[in-house]
Amino acid sequence: MSTVVIKLGGTEGVQFDAIAQDVAHLRQTRPELRLVLVHGGSAEANALGEALGYPPRFVTSPSGFTSRYTDRRTLEIFLMAVRGKVNGLLVEQLQRLGLNALGLSGLDGRLLQAKRKGSIRIVENGKRKILRGDYTGKIQAVNADLLHTLLAQGYLPVVAPLAVSEQGEALNVDADRAAAMIAAALDAETLLLLTAAPGLLERFPDESSLIPRLPRARLEQAMDYAQGRMKKKVLAAQEALAGGVGRVIIADGRVAHPVLDALDGGGTVIM
Amino acid sequence: MSTVVIKLGGTEGVQFDAIAQDVAHLRQTRPELRLVLVHGGSAEANALGEALGYPPRFVTSPSGFTSRYTDRRTLEIFLMAVRGKVNGLLVEQLQRLGLNALGLSGLDGRLLQAKRKGSIRIVENGKRKILRGDYTGKIQAVNADLLHTLLAQGYLPVVAPLAVSEQGEALNVDADRAAAMIAAALDAETLLLLTAAPGLLERFPDESSLIPRLPRARLEQAMDYAQGRMKKKVLAAQEALAGGVGRVIIADGRVAHPVLDALDGGGTVIM
Repeated sequence: MSTVVIKLGGTEGVQFDAIAQDVAHLRQTRPELRLVLVHGGSAEANALGEALGYPPRFVTSPSGFTSRYTDRRTLEIFLMAVRGKVNGLLVEQLQRLGLNALGLSGLDGRLLQAKRKGSIRIVENGKRKILRGDYTGKIQAVNADLLHTLLAQGYLPVVAPLAVSEQGEALNVDADRAAAMIAAALDAETLLLLTAAPGLLERFPDESSLIPRLPRARLEQAMDYAQGRMKKKVLAAQEALAGGVGRVIIADGRVAHPVLDALDGGGTVIM
Repeated sequence: MSTVVIKLGGTEGVQFDAIAQDVAHLRQTRPELRLVLVHGGSAEANALGEALGYPPRFVTSPSGFTSRYTDRRTLEIFLMAVRGKVNGLLVEQLQRLGLNALGLSGLDGRLLQAKRKGSIRIVENGKRKILRGDYTGKIQAVNADLLHTLLAQGYLPVVAPLAVSEQGEALNVDADRAAAMIAAALDAETLLLLTAAPGLLERFPDESSLIPRLPRARLEQAMDYAQGRMKKKVLAAQEALAGGVGRVIIADGRVAHPVLDALDGGGTVIM
């Protein structure tokens, strides 16, 4: 059985409804495919934090990655916005199309087990600092049995990017890398990372510099020209391929048929 | 296999941590019991609505039941507060105690299928009115297979009171009645409804008027003296018993051992 893991951006511009329509179409035309959706939700979490007078704090690591600093209150905001609303509305949208979607976060059934970072190294105004009390984690294991069970019974799992620590704490995790870990654990044929760009660009933001095919050996080099969040997608692609996933596609989530176009050769295909 | 469905109040005073501790104890001492938790979350939803400048609107039906009017924005607030936060924190609390809890709302996997009311009859200032655009529902079917599958694999399902309409819409449902429907669908031995009172009181709020045992034949009559939210618990008890549940216990969720005390003969036992 072929498995396709689809990561939907949590950012503006990515069309949830178009993706849901494509997934419904795929379900009908290729019923043998096993589909798992993973989503982000940063934009919703930011908006909720702002509305509640508790805006997000973004920090940059010494190696240049940007992430959300997640104290306990931010974690609760994340639970509400991402596990509650984004996941819930996505499940609802799929249910309206007749798909039996089932929302899960990585906390549920210990789907995603992670190591809590606790303290994170950041660079602020050119200085290195350590921030404590952080509830983010690095995924170390996936409960693939749970997904196999649900898939075997015809459910469409929709996964929110949270994980559980060894101590049972809820943790915020990166959605692209969560999707990569899930794809690897399921021996997926394809990991599709949808984003608000046509794919990997050699000269960001020049969309005509799209790289259509990239051999995995040249992924390391891609870290040099990948900008911002795209760095995490390149990292996720590396992890997925190293974990045995057949191919990773980074493609445009803003078009009329994001999933169908990507499976039809669009975006950047990394093998 | 005996099944016990436990409904936790969403209101102040009910001790989530004491309940979680009891559930962990029960899991160790009576591993043969199959446990399902169902929770409310009104207090959290109200608080979030207030914080977002969109306070809840409560309406009273001609027959005297009070419920939340759920327009689309209220439904989203409910998703965030109840499916996101209350359910998430409860799952986390159970995971911290080593229980493999798995959160679900009735929307997920079509666990709770309901008929959308759409318009509701209310009484306001003594006048009957009809309110439209309501996203609440009356549960009509339970996907017991999903719960059986999860229970068989050792998961502890934790259910948030939402349901899915025939059209795939997310709906807010009453948590007591959701618990009753789930208990009936699972042929549960016991439905335990925890609340911020010692049980059913003959003369509310006189706690010394607790009714320790109530034959089901006298439930109808109990509607006369049950006050406020307790009316819904009596209704839920009727539905559960009619659906084949062995006994319903309405007991105090505010004590040190809410679950163990109740299973040990506390509260009001209705058979």
